[in-house]
Amino acid sequence: MTVTRRTMLGAAVAGGVVAMVPGGAVATALAKSVERWGLYEIALDGPSGGNPFDDVRLTATFESGGRTIAVPGFYDGDGTYRIRFSPGDLGRWTWRTASNVAALDGKTGTMTCVAPAAGNRGPVRMSRDGYHFVYADGTPYRPVGTTSYSWALQSDARCAETLATLKTAPFNKIRMCVFPNVASVATDPFVRTGAGPKDWDPARFDPAYFRRFEDRIRRLGALGIEADVILFHPYDKLRGYSDMKPADDARYLRYIAARFGAFRNVWWAMANEYDLVETKTVADWDRLFQTLVAADPHDRLRSIHNLHVYYDQRKPWITHASIQNGAAVLDDGRVHPHRQFAQKAVIFDEVIYEGNSSKRWAALTGEQLVERFWWGTIGGCYVGHGEVLSAGDNPDVSWLGQGGKLNGTSPARIAFLRKILEDGPLPGIDPIQQFWDYHLGGRDFTYYLKYFGRDTPTEWKVRLPTKAADPHNSFRIDVIDTWNMTVTPVDGVFTMQQLNEYDVHDPARPTVALPGRPYMALRIVKV
Amino acid sequence: MTVTRRTMLGAAVAGGVVAMVPGGAVATALAKSVERWGLYEIALDGPSGGNPFDDVRLTATFESGGRTIAVPGFYDGDGTYRIRFSPGDLGRWTWRTASNVAALDGKTGTMTCVAPAAGNRGPVRMSRDGYHFVYADGTPYRPVGTTSYSWALQSDARCAETLATLKTAPFNKIRMCVFPNVASVATDPFVRTGAGPKDWDPARFDPAYFRRFEDRIRRLGALGIEADVILFHPYDKLRGYSDMKPADDARYLRYIAARFGAFRNVWWAMANEYDLVETKTVADWDRLFQTLVAADPHDRLRSIHNLHVYYDQRKPWITHASIQNGAAVLDDGRVHPHRQFAQKAVIFDEVIYEGNSSKRWAALTGEQLVERFWWGTIGGCYVGHGEVLSAGDNPDVSWLGQGGKLNGTSPARIAFLRKILEDGPLPGIDPIQQFWDYHLGGRDFTYYLKYFGRDTPTEWKVRLPTKAADPHNSFRIDVIDTWNMTVTPVDGVFTMQQLNEYDVHDPARPTVALPGRPYMALRIVKV
Repeated sequence: MTVTRRTMLGAAVAGGVVAMVPGGAVATALAKSVERWGLYEIALDGPSGGNPFDDVRLTATFESGGRTIAVPGFYDGDGTYRIRFSPGDLGRWTWRTASNVAALDGKTGTMTCVAPAAGNRGPVRMSRDGYHFVYADGTPYRPVGTTSYSWALQSDARCAETLATLKTAPFNKIRMCVFPNVASVATDPFVRTGAGPKDWDPARFDPAYFRRFEDRIRRLGALGIEADVILFHPYDKLRGYSDMKPADDARYLRYIAARFGAFRNVWWAMANEYDLVETKTVADWDRLFQTLVAADPHDRLRSIHNLHVYYDQRKPWITHASIQNGAAVLDDGRVHPHRQFAQKAVIFDEVIYEGNSSKRWAALTGEQLVERFWWGTIGGCYVGHGEVLSAGDNPDVSWLGQGGKLNGTSPARIAFLRKILEDGPLPGIDPIQQFWDYHLGGRDFTYYLKYFGRDTPTEWKVRLPTKAADPHNSFRIDVIDTWNMTVTPVDGVFTMQQLNEYDVHDPARPTVALPGRPYMALRIVKV
Repeated sequence: MTVTRRTMLGAAVAGGVVAMVPGGAVATALAKSVERWGLYEIALDGPSGGNPFDDVRLTATFESGGRTIAVPGFYDGDGTYRIRFSPGDLGRWTWRTASNVAALDGKTGTMTCVAPAAGNRGPVRMSRDGYHFVYADGTPYRPVGTTSYSWALQSDARCAETLATLKTAPFNKIRMCVFPNVASVATDPFVRTGAGPKDWDPARFDPAYFRRFEDRIRRLGALGIEADVILFHPYDKLRGYSDMKPADDARYLRYIAARFGAFRNVWWAMANEYDLVETKTVADWDRLFQTLVAADPHDRLRSIHNLHVYYDQRKPWITHASIQNGAAVLDDGRVHPHRQFAQKAVIFDEVIYEGNSSKRWAALTGEQLVERFWWGTIGGCYVGHGEVLSAGDNPDVSWLGQGGKLNGTSPARIAFLRKILEDGPLPGIDPIQQFWDYHLGGRDFTYYLKYFGRDTPTEWKVRLPTKAADPHNSFRIDVIDTWNMTVTPVDGVFTMQQLNEYDVHDPARPTVALPGRPYMALRIVKV
């Protein structure tokens, strides 16, 4: 029996594109060190008889500076067991395995966690205020996501095309399913037991399926894109992957958490349209979250996505709300209650897609989708993209279903918005006095975004809401055409004075001219 | 020692106006029966020394048909202890007291619960679906509330004026504080210990204060008005009634629950603007709710009202959400998320008031307040009224603060809306396919309300959203001017046929004419 240690350097995750090895792991040199937030892997030889997924328990306890973390291992087929750990703290770590199998028990080792390479900013966490996101190294992260449910399960060529698209697209997060929801090349996460659609064994994973999937996660990481991994969905009634028994669900979650959880760009989306999964109740979802929390020492971000029935987003295992709503981001006043109820960050992950479908859920113009992004932004939340521009009228054959190329008009405008967000204040855009319906987001006294949506005003009366602490700053104002992607500075500054109990203004400059077009915004920044 | 039994007949609560007895209880004849949902009272003589509020524990256990209910008693001063019970089940009840004081222990009695008199519909409960309200006898209850915080603490003459106003006003619920928040006649719920504002003993209630308050509750009941009793508020920093210690808060809640809880028209509002009470955390409020639930065998409705920070309305002790928001009921699309998050009935109890104040929170026109009522209604929720039309600019001296007369233009229009609600479907108005932004409330296939707010359309394209189960009914349509209070039937019927996958229409009658005025609505009812 041999103990091999493989270290996947953080750079291999966050750096350039790695050659695609269909169905295989990315083999890297043995190493005694790992980047902070990189992936350290222990591979051990053990039994392949019986059912290793059920029979073998394996954990490694990592210790550094008095802190210990128990990291579960997983079976990767052919008698190989792996333990993956992404250290969050610099310095020397020791580890020791524990197993009910002698060959895997009591193995020990050491490694040193070294400073991350350029581009490795660590996993995304919630900002201190809970309403925004930040990389572990303190760099702000503004989620600008897209959805391509089964892109990772397509052919290697199609996957490469999708990755090439993502390389120049504005998206830093992608929602993607473990289980296929449209026609796919990879369709069997579990070992088949016959030819029928339900002839598969929930107790036996096919490691090749997951190895292939994690290759896609790794490649997304190399592009700086978070993988929002959807664990269950209601669309596979034929196969029934979301209709397993509780013990099978738990085994699956533990396997996923052990295999994927050490990749620093992984987020957990417990389900897509959870309320359509007929075989699970809210109590079941609560239990699955508890299982996932217990199985994931890396404590990755967790959400659940609805169709009509909002999950209780205040539950402690929810790190941020993932909301589907077709009408909520048509007005910042509809957005605000989501923050007020969730009391944490809200991502409107599905707001109807840009598309040419006969289905209304996939028939927005680019303008309509971009408008939704802006209202969500002004409301202090985040919005997600999806595209269904398909030949024929099959939404499955589209970016949304299978990835490939983006053909819509929204991504360029979303890139434009992303730049504005990245130039914006920390930790992000908050609603400004939403009780009084100002349609303003930003930070008190220093930064404001105003958005006019489909209105076509020819001027804006310069008024900002005030509070007792107002220092009466001076501001520059940019007129932003969110569709034509222009930023036009207004000459000079606006020096605020008290107008009345509620507002400040510049008596010398009462208005800003606007061009009478739709989709205009203003950026008002303290000088 | 004597045992006296006083029965306050339900009729005395729900029937005609009882002569006002300042500071005194309404004495009624001894009776061996009580109406269902009426108030049965046991009065016992006991010790007056020491501190009866702390020293004496007294409970009566009522039993009927194998069901037992433990009802806590309270000390009413001058050596008198009372136990109040409102039976929910017809038939013979027996009771037995238990106390740590021999004179109050082991007393027994019987009474018969008889059918309620006309007008006694029992307490208001949540509808089965949780989004609406219903009296215990099954009569629907549509909350149309107002707020007059300290009306019950004004002079008897002013209280009589308020009650006379309410007798002809459209309101069937009133929010009212136990502790004064504006200049009041009754100011001392606790025994004074000196001349300073904080010289009072939280362990010693002044029974006369509470006797006077419950007289107002009873008189509201006689008018068919629910008393939404606000237990704490942040506005009495001088006295500090909301800044008591936890044990004092608990004693107060137990006293309130024992004294007031048997009145069938009582609701509990734990606090007004709870998030402004600086001495209490959310954990404190949670604990107070648990105390209240344990102290209230009558299980009256429970809510808590916010300023900016929404309480978690899904918590199990919340029966319905009470929301303050200045902008949420300006569009049904802003209303819907509240239902989706709360998953129970939502009352927007404070939406800015009709008023002439220089303060913006009290400066709506009647049109603006009525508009808010309609958007809330279409959104499947309920809205509350308040009025600050005061001489000078002191909002305290107004209906909102002290009661008296109503002078606004909104109450007549709210009465008009109430009539429409009472003619409407059971259990109430729900949002109709809000994901698709139809601006429709009602019940699928049978009843729809559409509202146009400030828009001034000259026609409406007749389209209703459909579903697989759509029976393609025929409808009559009323054009409603919500401000001028007219209902104009459109001649003939509209016979629905499938228009496309999503909508039905009548190809023979594509539009309904509208007058181009604001505040119009349509009522579309199956024939």
